[in-house]
Amino acid sequence: MQIVIDRHSKVPIYRQIVDRIRELIVSGTLPEGFRLPPERRLAEALGVNRSTVLTAYRELKAEGLLHAHVGRGTSVHAPVQAGGSVRDSGAIPWKQLFREGASHRQDPVVRDLLELTERRDVISLAVGLPAPELLPLPLLTTIFDSLVEEAGPEILLHCPTEGHTPLRETLTRWLATRGIACTVPETLVLSGSQQGLDLMVRALVDPGDVVVVEEPTYVGILPVLRTAQARVLTVPVDHDGMRTDVLETILARHRPKLIYTLPTFQNPSGVEMSLTRRRELLELAARNQVPILEDDPYSELCYDGSPLPSLKALDTTGQVVYLSTLSKVLFPGMRLGFMAGPRPLIRTLALLKQGVDLHASSVGQRLLDRFIRDGHYEPYLKTLRTAYAERRDTMDRALNAGSIPGLAWTKPRGGFYFWCRLPKEVERSRLLAEAADTGVAYLPGDACFAEPPADTFVRLNFSYSSPEQIGDGIERFLESVRRAMRTSRTQIPHQIGTKPVV
Amino acid sequence: MQIVIDRHSKVPIYRQIVDRIRELIVSGTLPEGFRLPPERRLAEALGVNRSTVLTAYRELKAEGLLHAHVGRGTSVHAPVQAGGSVRDSGAIPWKQLFREGASHRQDPVVRDLLELTERRDVISLAVGLPAPELLPLPLLTTIFDSLVEEAGPEILLHCPTEGHTPLRETLTRWLATRGIACTVPETLVLSGSQQGLDLMVRALVDPGDVVVVEEPTYVGILPVLRTAQARVLTVPVDHDGMRTDVLETILARHRPKLIYTLPTFQNPSGVEMSLTRRRELLELAARNQVPILEDDPYSELCYDGSPLPSLKALDTTGQVVYLSTLSKVLFPGMRLGFMAGPRPLIRTLALLKQGVDLHASSVGQRLLDRFIRDGHYEPYLKTLRTAYAERRDTMDRALNAGSIPGLAWTKPRGGFYFWCRLPKEVERSRLLAEAADTGVAYLPGDACFAEPPADTFVRLNFSYSSPEQIGDGIERFLESVRRAMRTSRTQIPHQIGTKPVV
Repeated sequence: MQIVIDRHSKVPIYRQIVDRIRELIVSGTLPEGFRLPPERRLAEALGVNRSTVLTAYRELKAEGLLHAHVGRGTSVHAPVQAGGSVRDSGAIPWKQLFREGASHRQDPVVRDLLELTERRDVISLAVGLPAPELLPLPLLTTIFDSLVEEAGPEILLHCPTEGHTPLRETLTRWLATRGIACTVPETLVLSGSQQGLDLMVRALVDPGDVVVVEEPTYVGILPVLRTAQARVLTVPVDHDGMRTDVLETILARHRPKLIYTLPTFQNPSGVEMSLTRRRELLELAARNQVPILEDDPYSELCYDGSPLPSLKALDTTGQVVYLSTLSKVLFPGMRLGFMAGPRPLIRTLALLKQGVDLHASSVGQRLLDRFIRDGHYEPYLKTLRTAYAERRDTMDRALNAGSIPGLAWTKPRGGFYFWCRLPKEVERSRLLAEAADTGVAYLPGDACFAEPPADTFVRLNFSYSSPEQIGDGIERFLESVRRAMRTSRTQIPHQIGTKPVV
Repeated sequence: MQIVIDRHSKVPIYRQIVDRIRELIVSGTLPEGFRLPPERRLAEALGVNRSTVLTAYRELKAEGLLHAHVGRGTSVHAPVQAGGSVRDSGAIPWKQLFREGASHRQDPVVRDLLELTERRDVISLAVGLPAPELLPLPLLTTIFDSLVEEAGPEILLHCPTEGHTPLRETLTRWLATRGIACTVPETLVLSGSQQGLDLMVRALVDPGDVVVVEEPTYVGILPVLRTAQARVLTVPVDHDGMRTDVLETILARHRPKLIYTLPTFQNPSGVEMSLTRRRELLELAARNQVPILEDDPYSELCYDGSPLPSLKALDTTGQVVYLSTLSKVLFPGMRLGFMAGPRPLIRTLALLKQGVDLHASSVGQRLLDRFIRDGHYEPYLKTLRTAYAERRDTMDRALNAGSIPGLAWTKPRGGFYFWCRLPKEVERSRLLAEAADTGVAYLPGDACFAEPPADTFVRLNFSYSSPEQIGDGIERFLESVRRAMRTSRTQIPHQIGTKPVV
């Protein structure tokens, strides 16, 4: 990327940079996805102030020519008309054809997070993954070999849409030990618990229908609701979980198709809904005949004592649909989840699923079934709990060591995440660039809100990285926070060749 | 199931049977899904005419208390109100809450087919599966072991939504050898090719939008279009494939969002669209700016000579979206497919996919990538072609040996299926029961039509079963056909205790 600055020009330097980069994008020299150098490096290369480059990038973002991505900083978002061959643009005006809900303007945050999994140059505190080095790979390999031995090529073939029957039986027994009584026909094996969200919304939600979610909420529910063109109403989460008093006011005015909640060690906030709130939620939902979708991927990962009973375990009227996954701790990449709910619902979801992807991975289902049946699951969980508790404590200490005034968080009792409120002086977009620059990735809190919050939050994962990486990563993150404070700009002393542009 | 017949009653015997079974269902004694004995066996047990039982079952089906399923014959479809506990029926009136497109009244035919995979008592000519005994399981196990060795636990983690990058590179090279030029960002790895249908329709189709499909068409596209509440217009297939003259009349009146075609060894008809028709289709679609979704799972399985070039290979305007799978011949149960299309479309589909299931199986993608990269794919395909050609010829001979007048089929040059038109005298519902009775499963042709056809068709698969099973299965099938002919009823000689009821 060649940029020549004319220090004698009347055109401000930041404007010269904007014009040159725009030219390179529109001519196709910088293709879609091309990563621009971090602001600091470009500034050094050009011998200009960092804030000058920051302003230039910001302007190009406003023009829609650049994108800021989690963990990658800033990259080119080339308009289709620019530099596109016939093959690229096509005879078909695709953007005119897309459904409103499937707009290409969807927030790509989940996709961006997953792209990080192929990056080696970043400490990722962003993705919600288990610790790779703790995964029971040798054991899974042994089970795989014995499945090959016993069942032969059948393991590669199709299986029923609702799931491999022995696994469904195993799941009902597993659920029973968690206080959830259900029969095999009340279960559905999913291609990842994300699919449970999608199927539920597809079964119930017409455009304009109201769906209630927590604020903040799981980042992956939002694209599903946008695709369905749902009207999303939010209920704030405090230290006791979803605020049932706010829910009550919503239910007084609306009849939602669904209440979506993640009551135990919530993603992203780490909050555990109190028992009182759980009962209030159930009572409110029952009185208004609104189904509850309970997403419960983390209750097994409780580091101090035991988790509270699930909503489903407390449910006496059959209104709670339970969604979980065991593969989060075993093999998230194999995409397995499951649901438990009333039969008319499960039947309808299965009929949808036949058109969506036929069924979940046969091999994965058999592996999971045998892993649990052979008694490996509980001992493995114990190992995880010990290791993750240590990582959580490491992250807590590292955050404390930073001593940044205005940075606030609560140490969670379980789950995968710290949820931090940042000092008011932090600029969100600048933090993203700074973090990419220092080589650390986090999930921007905005992604967990249906509408951008006033405060700045970040979600930091402590399960994936080693304690050493966590220490290092938090150090980098805190350094980025310091640099991204509005006040820090006054510390930049030198201006080269032109007046300050900001 | 206890049924007592009173031969001295004035109530006709068939009516006594209806009343008793209804009572058993409504009381909850026969639960949802309970399989009723085949008509023949119940008739023998009760000492009554088979047609009496047939009539009773038919009446119960009309009442919605029984269902006829592929490969299982007849089972109980208990109404939710009947025999349901509070847990079953729930406080939530689920059926009132479902979207119109997600109705529980969807045709469960794909789900029913997949359920067959756990049945051992039926010769399945129904499911489109590869021959289990030919699957390269030892080779795949070796590759799996070396992946574990090389990449470690990473193989169990997430991967990018668009797919594991090395696999996408491999796929572009594979596509290039099939005359399809595309770059990595123009590819998308899917959780099975079924997902490609679902994502395309979700991206493009609003309720009421027109989609053109072939008649007959792939059974799995229909639930997708029903869920989307699309208006489905059909174009008949003749020996040269989709009738472009009929398509032209449709395009004169409508502007479809999509033309869906399976031009090479079509599922179910086995027909290969001629080169002339391919060019006509491309020309028509280009003139009207309608995208074509080309589904091409079978062109690799050509048993005589080479397949014609794909529509995508002939496409000069970028209007064809190519959908295929290599896992159909390797491991259908691991759910892998892929698409190649213009970047704006692929980007939008990836944004949808992030909410649908995050990404396709990481392990499966790595297995497939290595299998192709290491050069195993082509030799394996050769083995399959030889074996499947033999099975195809076996099925052709067995059908010929039956000498049933009015039974018509064409031996296909490739793919997985024979498509048979049955004699006009055959009763469809009776054939299903007869086939279940003799222990053979086929796909009823009706399932491949958006609206029930006048003639009766069946799809018979020749890839899954061994040549011996094919011989045996076709014999059973032909016997069922003979029994299901309307004329055959006159051959039943004895009537017991009451007048004939039909």
